[in-house]
Amino acid sequence: MLEIEINRNSTIPLHQQIFEGISDRIRSGGIADGERLPSIRVLAKKLGVSLMTVVKVYERLEKSGFIIRIQGKGSFVNNDMKASMKTGYEEEKYGWQLAISDYVPRNRFDHYFTPHETSYQLSVAAISPGLLPNRYIKSEIYKTLEEHPLILSKYGPIQGDEELRYTMSKYLHKQNIHISPDDILVTSGAQQGIDLIARTFIGPGDVVVVEMPTYSAAIDTFRNRGATIIGVPVDENGMQMDILQNVIEKYKPKLVYTIPNFHNPTGHVLSDSRRRKLLLFAEEYQFLIVEDDPWSEIFFEKAPPHPIKSYDSHGHVIYIKGLSKVVAPGCRIGILIANGILLARLLVSKANVDLGSPMLTQKVILPLLDSERIEKHMEKLRFALKLRRDKVTDILSANLPEGIRWTVPKGGINIWLTFPVTCHTDDLLIECRKRHILFLPGSSCFSEEIEKNHLRISFSFLPEELLEEGVVKFCEIVTGFMNK
Amino acid sequence: MLEIEINRNSTIPLHQQIFEGISDRIRSGGIADGERLPSIRVLAKKLGVSLMTVVKVYERLEKSGFIIRIQGKGSFVNNDMKASMKTGYEEEKYGWQLAISDYVPRNRFDHYFTPHETSYQLSVAAISPGLLPNRYIKSEIYKTLEEHPLILSKYGPIQGDEELRYTMSKYLHKQNIHISPDDILVTSGAQQGIDLIARTFIGPGDVVVVEMPTYSAAIDTFRNRGATIIGVPVDENGMQMDILQNVIEKYKPKLVYTIPNFHNPTGHVLSDSRRRKLLLFAEEYQFLIVEDDPWSEIFFEKAPPHPIKSYDSHGHVIYIKGLSKVVAPGCRIGILIANGILLARLLVSKANVDLGSPMLTQKVILPLLDSERIEKHMEKLRFALKLRRDKVTDILSANLPEGIRWTVPKGGINIWLTFPVTCHTDDLLIECRKRHILFLPGSSCFSEEIEKNHLRISFSFLPEELLEEGVVKFCEIVTGFMNK
Repeated sequence: MLEIEINRNSTIPLHQQIFEGISDRIRSGGIADGERLPSIRVLAKKLGVSLMTVVKVYERLEKSGFIIRIQGKGSFVNNDMKASMKTGYEEEKYGWQLAISDYVPRNRFDHYFTPHETSYQLSVAAISPGLLPNRYIKSEIYKTLEEHPLILSKYGPIQGDEELRYTMSKYLHKQNIHISPDDILVTSGAQQGIDLIARTFIGPGDVVVVEMPTYSAAIDTFRNRGATIIGVPVDENGMQMDILQNVIEKYKPKLVYTIPNFHNPTGHVLSDSRRRKLLLFAEEYQFLIVEDDPWSEIFFEKAPPHPIKSYDSHGHVIYIKGLSKVVAPGCRIGILIANGILLARLLVSKANVDLGSPMLTQKVILPLLDSERIEKHMEKLRFALKLRRDKVTDILSANLPEGIRWTVPKGGINIWLTFPVTCHTDDLLIECRKRHILFLPGSSCFSEEIEKNHLRISFSFLPEELLEEGVVKFCEIVTGFMNK
Repeated sequence: MLEIEINRNSTIPLHQQIFEGISDRIRSGGIADGERLPSIRVLAKKLGVSLMTVVKVYERLEKSGFIIRIQGKGSFVNNDMKASMKTGYEEEKYGWQLAISDYVPRNRFDHYFTPHETSYQLSVAAISPGLLPNRYIKSEIYKTLEEHPLILSKYGPIQGDEELRYTMSKYLHKQNIHISPDDILVTSGAQQGIDLIARTFIGPGDVVVVEMPTYSAAIDTFRNRGATIIGVPVDENGMQMDILQNVIEKYKPKLVYTIPNFHNPTGHVLSDSRRRKLLLFAEEYQFLIVEDDPWSEIFFEKAPPHPIKSYDSHGHVIYIKGLSKVVAPGCRIGILIANGILLARLLVSKANVDLGSPMLTQKVILPLLDSERIEKHMEKLRFALKLRRDKVTDILSANLPEGIRWTVPKGGINIWLTFPVTCHTDDLLIECRKRHILFLPGSSCFSEEIEKNHLRISFSFLPEELLEEGVVKFCEIVTGFMNK
């Protein structure tokens, strides 16, 4: 059963909202291949919209290849990925569950159900355990537990451990962000930060602007709140401000989500002047900026410009930072910074979500963040990851056929490859999987008007030999694929 | 700005949905005392409903004391708690943020901002650190980290650590629940389990049935998804099935949330025959049951009946269990069990929420759950908590004035006290706070038709001497309060 949330007061037309709701669900396997959609009449009645609106939606769905309409029989889903969340359940026992509607219109279905045995996970955007200070952290855990055994047995404050918030406020001074520990909320990873913002401030029909392409899980999270996502293309200086201005004037967004430093997936850096411009837009048009900043410390030439948050004097920017990511990913700890009356509302959501992040994981990453070692660790990471980047781009240069372009990122962990428009990386992925190679298909990084001729590989996760082997094999497969 | 989500296809009338949206926000401080509501005409237009509908809502708001209407001037919020999320922000800097609407209509505002310095926290429903196996867990952490140092540096599966899921499937055999590790999703505490279910399956206008009273954070979580909550009263055998049947027939709920064992806050146990009846209703009327089971092991006489999940053959029951709660609350780990196509959808939500719970906290509680020690630990808890219950009920019997009734719970950690209807425990709380005593006011455990003459104290959290002192002082204050 379809559950589509619409907003009659949105700047986005109703037919567009409904189209997004249905197409996302088909793409995600929430409606299975071959399933029949409700009739135009039934859906119009259910949603309280005119017949013409639904006619428009079904026409567009057909034109985009999402459904096939058979005269006198109805409209049937045409999902060429054949992905379905309903695969493999026992129909006799659980068939009644099909009538239980849900509110997760979009998901990278494929991603969640990929077996983890693949050898060459070029898809994983995380730091290789070999580059992380495991031994130091382990010895610090022992010390921490001797000194504060109660962290195992006590709930912490919903807002997060006070010591960690204090340490982070100091740490961020170095990035020119001057805030009080009271402006910080500790989250279970940066992903939870995005989700808390989405569930607190975004609802059906709200407009969220993102870079195009962008972090795919951010698209999922905002879409699952019923938002319409508008993508603004990026160039080597980040999000293009003239296009953004048009989008803002036309759609009145509630929120702009940006990854200014070594942007995921393209690796570009938002220039200083564009950062200031973006903030000026936010002040003029009164929207929120979500500044997601996982990799600012991982630069290979010079440090990126100061965060947008560092100029923010009226609380337009909510700044998100994953912490455990570069230190101890098994801890899943991040922070967000919000000022004024935004934080109180985010705090309510945090309480609803999980009553606060675990004390144990917060205390585990604290000693490193609080010591001078963190600087040395970052230096080490910069050095090691730059070598990896060079290695991988060398292999790509030597082995990839002509017609493929890629970025040489000046920081971060990702390389974004662009193929000729006729090459679909979803198809390439099928070939790669057979040889145990995974990458992130570019299609998952677009909300609409999906470009299928990109892909992302991360050079940070695999052990070095596997990384080299994997990229060489990847190039072989690509060469074969392009010659087909 | 008011953001109220309504559903035209709900069994709940629109005026009722809108009334709930506004009254919850006022009660939570989301709309401040003295603030002016939009005019009837403006709100009707915004929501796309008739003027009469909004007239009805405002009349009821006035009648219930939530607003005061002044001829020619408008309708003004009358929040006698004076709680406001907008207190203390710098208006000049952040005033523009007032225009940013949010989607958190209900919260126990008061709860989140209570300073933690109170000495006698009779409000905290958690186990005293002194009763927890800290030393054992600490030594096991050391072993675990020596053997598997990578748990610090690797993301785990979104569904949760496989070993923990396997161990839990075995553990639950003892409770007659026979499921596969694949049916389990590891959550960051039981609270996240409730939230995942709410965000996946519940939307505006859906009807959720709960026990009346119930766990206040569950009300918040479902309300924040726009659900209408219908409460069914409990007696000493739990939720009353004849009333439930009427509610089901009238409102067609999508979900029934129940705490069958040592119910929070009343302490009652849902009888075996009612458990079976509830499941029959779910099968007949095709709704979901959420069975929240934190305390089944903590019984003082005999073990409670088997969980509803143990009879569930068609996947109607989603079973939630907090694990770290009775073992190492600083870890915030729980599980949920769901069958069929429900789990795949919950898994998508889990990915959106946080990409999976931390590996560290999952591995930390594993050794205890996997050893025979867990049985001994539970026995110890039963013994110690029974002594505490007896102590506290003795003090109450000896010291409380006449006219106050309470349960003597046969398990769990809470005592529910009922005062004469004219006694408001919200007022009593103000008195108690002055003497550094906190309890949970009963008003937060009701969704509508709030009964103000109850309160909950937990006897599990404070160290023993503080507990006794605190309860004695509490009785003194109550006596003074009743004699006023």
